[in-house]
Amino acid sequence: MTKPSETELLSQINSPEDLKRLPVEQLPRLCAEIRTFLINNVSQNPGHFASSMGAVELTVALHYVFDTPYDRIVWDVGHQAYVHKILTGRRDSFSTNRKLGGISGFPNPRESEYDTFSAGHASNSISAALGMAVATELNNDTPRRNVCAVIGDASISGGLAFEGLNNAANTNSNVLIILNDNDMSIDRNVGSLHSYLAHITTSKSYNNFRYKLFNGLKKLHIVTDRQRGPIMRFNNSLKALLSHEHNIFEGLNIRYFGPIDGHDVLRLVRVLTDIKNMKGPRLLHLRTVKGKGFEPAEKDPSRWHAPGRFNPATGEVVKASAPVRIPKYQEVFGETLLDLAKLDPRVVGVTAAMSSGTSMNILQDAMPSRVFDVGISEGHAVTFAGGMATDGLRPFVAIYSTFLQRAYDNIVNDTAIQSLPITFCIDRAGLVGEDGVTHHGVYDIAYLRPVPGMIIASPRNASMLRNLMYTSLVTEHGPMAIRYPRGSADADVAGTEMNRMPLGRGELLSSGDGPQVISLGPIASIVAEAVKRAKNDGINAAHYDAIFVKPLDEHMMQEIVSKQSPVITVEDGTVEGGLGTVVSDWLRDHGYDLPVIKIGVPDRFIYHGTVAQLYAQCGLDEDSIFNSIKQANAIYEDSYSRSR
Amino acid sequence: MTKPSETELLSQINSPEDLKRLPVEQLPRLCAEIRTFLINNVSQNPGHFASSMGAVELTVALHYVFDTPYDRIVWDVGHQAYVHKILTGRRDSFSTNRKLGGISGFPNPRESEYDTFSAGHASNSISAALGMAVATELNNDTPRRNVCAVIGDASISGGLAFEGLNNAANTNSNVLIILNDNDMSIDRNVGSLHSYLAHITTSKSYNNFRYKLFNGLKKLHIVTDRQRGPIMRFNNSLKALLSHEHNIFEGLNIRYFGPIDGHDVLRLVRVLTDIKNMKGPRLLHLRTVKGKGFEPAEKDPSRWHAPGRFNPATGEVVKASAPVRIPKYQEVFGETLLDLAKLDPRVVGVTAAMSSGTSMNILQDAMPSRVFDVGISEGHAVTFAGGMATDGLRPFVAIYSTFLQRAYDNIVNDTAIQSLPITFCIDRAGLVGEDGVTHHGVYDIAYLRPVPGMIIASPRNASMLRNLMYTSLVTEHGPMAIRYPRGSADADVAGTEMNRMPLGRGELLSSGDGPQVISLGPIASIVAEAVKRAKNDGINAAHYDAIFVKPLDEHMMQEIVSKQSPVITVEDGTVEGGLGTVVSDWLRDHGYDLPVIKIGVPDRFIYHGTVAQLYAQCGLDEDSIFNSIKQANAIYEDSYSRSR
Repeated sequence: MTKPSETELLSQINSPEDLKRLPVEQLPRLCAEIRTFLINNVSQNPGHFASSMGAVELTVALHYVFDTPYDRIVWDVGHQAYVHKILTGRRDSFSTNRKLGGISGFPNPRESEYDTFSAGHASNSISAALGMAVATELNNDTPRRNVCAVIGDASISGGLAFEGLNNAANTNSNVLIILNDNDMSIDRNVGSLHSYLAHITTSKSYNNFRYKLFNGLKKLHIVTDRQRGPIMRFNNSLKALLSHEHNIFEGLNIRYFGPIDGHDVLRLVRVLTDIKNMKGPRLLHLRTVKGKGFEPAEKDPSRWHAPGRFNPATGEVVKASAPVRIPKYQEVFGETLLDLAKLDPRVVGVTAAMSSGTSMNILQDAMPSRVFDVGISEGHAVTFAGGMATDGLRPFVAIYSTFLQRAYDNIVNDTAIQSLPITFCIDRAGLVGEDGVTHHGVYDIAYLRPVPGMIIASPRNASMLRNLMYTSLVTEHGPMAIRYPRGSADADVAGTEMNRMPLGRGELLSSGDGPQVISLGPIASIVAEAVKRAKNDGINAAHYDAIFVKPLDEHMMQEIVSKQSPVITVEDGTVEGGLGTVVSDWLRDHGYDLPVIKIGVPDRFIYHGTVAQLYAQCGLDEDSIFNSIKQANAIYEDSYSRSR
Repeated sequence: MTKPSETELLSQINSPEDLKRLPVEQLPRLCAEIRTFLINNVSQNPGHFASSMGAVELTVALHYVFDTPYDRIVWDVGHQAYVHKILTGRRDSFSTNRKLGGISGFPNPRESEYDTFSAGHASNSISAALGMAVATELNNDTPRRNVCAVIGDASISGGLAFEGLNNAANTNSNVLIILNDNDMSIDRNVGSLHSYLAHITTSKSYNNFRYKLFNGLKKLHIVTDRQRGPIMRFNNSLKALLSHEHNIFEGLNIRYFGPIDGHDVLRLVRVLTDIKNMKGPRLLHLRTVKGKGFEPAEKDPSRWHAPGRFNPATGEVVKASAPVRIPKYQEVFGETLLDLAKLDPRVVGVTAAMSSGTSMNILQDAMPSRVFDVGISEGHAVTFAGGMATDGLRPFVAIYSTFLQRAYDNIVNDTAIQSLPITFCIDRAGLVGEDGVTHHGVYDIAYLRPVPGMIIASPRNASMLRNLMYTSLVTEHGPMAIRYPRGSADADVAGTEMNRMPLGRGELLSSGDGPQVISLGPIASIVAEAVKRAKNDGINAAHYDAIFVKPLDEHMMQEIVSKQSPVITVEDGTVEGGLGTVVSDWLRDHGYDLPVIKIGVPDRFIYHGTVAQLYAQCGLDEDSIFNSIKQANAIYEDSYSRSR
């Protein structure tokens, strides 16, 4: 789809070695070619777009200046790492991005020696890079191995990044932190002075300038010669005064360079060459434009973060043809939250940089004072909600399952121990598909189950999500988790009546005396098909929706054991401690020895592909479930015939 | 033990109301009396000492100035909150501190309306206080309700505190953050200028001073009138220049006051009164001396953090009379780590402000370059170790079980997905005793079990801890967790030979055809006694040590099921997803329907007391285990007689 002439330089580059052979003045052209390649590819194979478009020059400069893979580049999150993949031998396989068996959408050490560390959850790059820098010192690597973390301005707001910075600042490790600042969230005051300062920081004339100013300030008795760590602190103080800003890096005494224009590749090469061999922790602050080089994306970078398929010429996003609007689960959540907020002034929404991803923006648009998007800081989000609940509010905390892992301790200590009525709306629970191994939300049930007092539920459909949220609001309880998957719900239920559900009560969907199938969540629809097939095959399977994992429905379980048939559990989460284990434990604790077949995500890491493909891998597709029912029935028949 | 005359004022104070009736000039005397009370009490009833001694004036001033409990004080960690407890109606019950049924060693909302939020895990106070401040706004509380977080300089280095600060800085919420800075870790440059600045910050003359200086700088063209948010930023820039320091609060644009002397109670009252009704987020920075007022503690505050029983007159710590030195498990860890580090240059130690608590200081003293104490930042500790392991090192990460909850996501994403050979040495696993509900390490097995590739082991004794650590070093694997309890090991094994153990192999300790008891960890010694009693009673119970929860020993399990007897599991952790569940799942998955009695920490929060008392509460004492064996045997006899 890309004409050969459009990527003439790029087509010769199969590794950073090839890149280094280009004369520096050809780099701007290469960058243009990379953008063409990205536009043509991502428009056809949906993935993350705007971040990588903004990181073209940075990536080219890094691989041009540094000796990768000997030198280490650690990408944070990795949305921005497509160019890195293209330049490190994965140009031709790039069309397999995020597809089953293809390359991963994030850096992945299993995939390439150039991918130094798993990226996917924000804010980990500085810590990992510092670890590598320490290792290279202890290993006495010769020649000096450079380690570089590339982190976005959103990621650096995470507490983990701060911990990394704070620790880096206390060492002399040779770690270079590149802040790829593409939405100016750190400071919106972009001016010529910043640019000037960035330039002089690495130029000799700056020393003269600084010296003169220092003397001027001495005359005013504002500074003296006897200050501690005078060079850096004075330098930083000066820049702070001149630019009318403070930044935390200066506060932490990390050597700071910038901000400079991250789209000037020649300058980037020069600056990186200058600071590459300096000692100690350094931070280079780049200003970049998310979506750079594709006008629609520059204008609306959020929408173009991961736009789906689009027309590369017009920028028109290709919409799936859907005659009837079926909302996603996240939208059902968002609309319901708004309804609840209208109903009860105590209702507030809390999220951690997932406002549009969780559809909390619906409430945010309608009642901005009732929504708190705290940025990438899941731990804080939960404790903050704990504080709000302490003083009478009813927070609904919407966080993706995989990211809620970051708030585990906060859940235990800052909500459960105090039995605070917080509703955790766990979006993207289960297998998420193309985002792959770092993003599947398959551990939540297992890690929440041991927390005393935690209620764990999952709706089977849109209407039930609405009812569970309503129930959480109008019922007295401590923390309650409601998990639901990525993707479309079954129906548009906006505005429909909300009903209170009994806590800890499952539902019989299809009765039968044969194998007793218990499912959790929307996977019930697949299970229902498998049960129907079984019935057509003469196997009289029953189908229950557990709805609640904790507390598990005693009444439902008693009904199930009365059948003396094998039990099958089906869930979109790990089998190591999920619904199946809870059911099995219940049976054992109550003295029932029925066989239990646990269907769920097996005890290994699952990579990327469509959700349907991954379901099939895990035995969660209709065929596999049907076969499990047949197998269970065989056990049943067998034991029945033996007992006769 | 305290003479009445020594606490004449204090004895009249049963609530902050009583405190407010004192004339301000009597506060210094009251502070002295509180110190006397603390010394006399904590010397007899061991607890945290030095932190509260350093927070006497602060606590008195807070309750004097603020209208508690209407105003909210959120203590971070809460080591420092003894004085708060004494002043809020718990003076007479203070001798029950940390004892079974007595008051908790940390603030606890179940205990008092003055304890606004659960404290125990560092760094959560700012987030919680911000939540309360937001709630009070949304609730339109009248009169204005003030919210105040009190956080130490170590706690504020945690990522969670940074996330809280970062979020607070973006709001206009009326939250006051008091930084109780007692070891100067933020900046060691204590000088008269700091004191002066602190004074002028709240005085009128400062405005004149600032104005003049501003004009002077304008003449130099260093600042202009057109700057954004000029007052605060200029103010902060100025202080930074004058004091030759930057601090992160200024960088985050939080209104900053200080540092001031935290032991001048009259001045504290004045300053708090001044800034109490100001709007928006503010930070007051106090310098305090840990252990203030008790000379031995001032000299060695670390040792006096929680000194145990001591002589209040001489400061001599009372040592338990132990003719033979039995090291703690942490010491066995520390000594072994040093041995491993000598053996293999790849071995490094990582901890998060638990260097002496985990005995990692043994390696630190011997080979300082091989130990990385990253401060209160468990998430960073794990990811940092991930970076080190990526480049060939073999990190041993020592973190208490309860605090490792803070690194859950890092364990999954930054070690397990990459199958990095990191050894998690999980100290304080199980019930920890007096520290109580926030500190028990009872969830680790349940939350680690679903992580693919994670090895989970627990040594039965000192020698096995040594061998497991050695095994982890010399065996190829991904992440491996070794959990061991607080307290004494069974023997001094320093310098003994280390042997490689097979991964995933349990051990038969006592054979028998009756109930099959499987225990994990040092609780084996209690179980062994119970099994011995059972045998004396004619019940031929078997006793196995699982050693590994994951992978569970298949060979051991096959041997166990061959007996067709009930299985009993005993563990010092939650029964909701621990060893018992793993054993039960194994049996079910392999088609065995033996009864399983799971003995462990039940599904509710356990408070404080001695470990022995809490064991008895949970059925983990010898009598209870013996009774469980008898009960299991009855099932066995019953089913045996039925099958005849």
